[in-house]
Amino acid sequence: MYKQNHLNNIRVVLSHTTHPGNIGAAARAMKTMGLRHLYLINPSHFPDAQAVAMAAGADDLLQNAVLCGTIDEALRDVALTVGMTARMRDISNEVSSPREAMPRVLQQAETHPVALLFGTEMSGLTNEEASRAQLLVNIPASQDFSSLNLAAAVQVIAYELAVAAEVFQPVAQTLQPAPHEQVEGLMEHLEKTLFEIGFFTTQNPQRMMQRLRRLYARARLESDEINILRGILSVTTEYNGRLKARYRQEEDV
Amino acid sequence: MYKQNHLNNIRVVLSHTTHPGNIGAAARAMKTMGLRHLYLINPSHFPDAQAVAMAAGADDLLQNAVLCGTIDEALRDVALTVGMTARMRDISNEVSSPREAMPRVLQQAETHPVALLFGTEMSGLTNEEASRAQLLVNIPASQDFSSLNLAAAVQVIAYELAVAAEVFQPVAQTLQPAPHEQVEGLMEHLEKTLFEIGFFTTQNPQRMMQRLRRLYARARLESDEINILRGILSVTTEYNGRLKARYRQEEDV
Repeated sequence: MYKQNHLNNIRVVLSHTTHPGNIGAAARAMKTMGLRHLYLINPSHFPDAQAVAMAAGADDLLQNAVLCGTIDEALRDVALTVGMTARMRDISNEVSSPREAMPRVLQQAETHPVALLFGTEMSGLTNEEASRAQLLVNIPASQDFSSLNLAAAVQVIAYELAVAAEVFQPVAQTLQPAPHEQVEGLMEHLEKTLFEIGFFTTQNPQRMMQRLRRLYARARLESDEINILRGILSVTTEYNGRLKARYRQEEDV
Repeated sequence: MYKQNHLNNIRVVLSHTTHPGNIGAAARAMKTMGLRHLYLINPSHFPDAQAVAMAAGADDLLQNAVLCGTIDEALRDVALTVGMTARMRDISNEVSSPREAMPRVLQQAETHPVALLFGTEMSGLTNEEASRAQLLVNIPASQDFSSLNLAAAVQVIAYELAVAAEVFQPVAQTLQPAPHEQVEGLMEHLEKTLFEIGFFTTQNPQRMMQRLRRLYARARLESDEINILRGILSVTTEYNGRLKARYRQEEDV
């Protein structure tokens, strides 16, 4: 969890954003990934109700947003500026993928403030802004249609950062596969039952059992599930027993 | 590029989407990452002008979207359904991260249609919908604020898919670092110049040169840049030459 502090050293800088909804959506994207510091360089409209609406609960980031008049103001104290670009650039900057760049961002953020710099919606960073960056990052995208929405780009970058930081443990429970002997107990029970109910009369029992084993192996059964399946098998046998008894009665008649 | 065909076998299924703007933004997110097939289960409003506005050029996906009345209609022909979940679930499904899951999605998409299933904005997938999935995926996010916007979630998943498929070559030019002898030429020139201009009188020349070497090593200079730096060095000594001549002239007066 110590890398949470690294994230705290990272600011998202949005330059000359046109649509306030994008500022709100960007704040939401940031907050889902543990980023909290938003800097705005001359936004067209801010504060704005549309920004609050799109923040959907991340309005604390909007309230604490730092409004700046110039890019140098927004980059004060920053040791590494990462510029987001959708284009080839003339200047000789190496352009990295998000996956390559984010570990480096985190490493720097351990000791110094880092800025993730996003340009305006229509045209991205100006050359002057891009020249402030020590590192340019391009989100790989379709060459026919490469324009990610601003907040969507913030989401992708923040997500890569959070994954690289490993700050968020998966919330999901992991599967608890049953031990070998329970699985074998089920297989024996299944085979016995399939014999009992007459399933194997026209089948090759061994080959069929192999296929069934494969199927259940892929499912990686849990203990509870094995109990359920064995319960079904037990009921199947009982039912089959009643069926047999009825047939015999009918014959007796 | 052959994996483009894999992406063509993948559909995004949005179930009971409330806001038409999210459908449009999801279409835009899909198209940036090379996904084209959108299925909509009972959207609240569709078609809708807000969807077209948010698609921002991905309206061809909206025009070709398949409207479905039931989830089973949307999953017709699908061999693998991947459900997106933000929550723990009671049912014993293994929940994967996007990074773990997407290679498996691509592998399946090589031969069969795959569905990426997203629930409604407020509450995600219903249990009935989730039970249709063979695989559940959770985007790791802040536990305090884990609700990604629907289109932002589509963007992250589509991005992971495109990265895993390696379909989009980086558009960026890579750095062309200058060969060793050019860098050494610069270092010699620099050292000579620093001696000449009297920089080393109060410094330890060797240690200083080591630091300068380190600095330029990090920059991984290109040939053009070395030429520029050497140009500066040349002018530096020339200027001093001119300066010296001027001083002498002044003394002569």
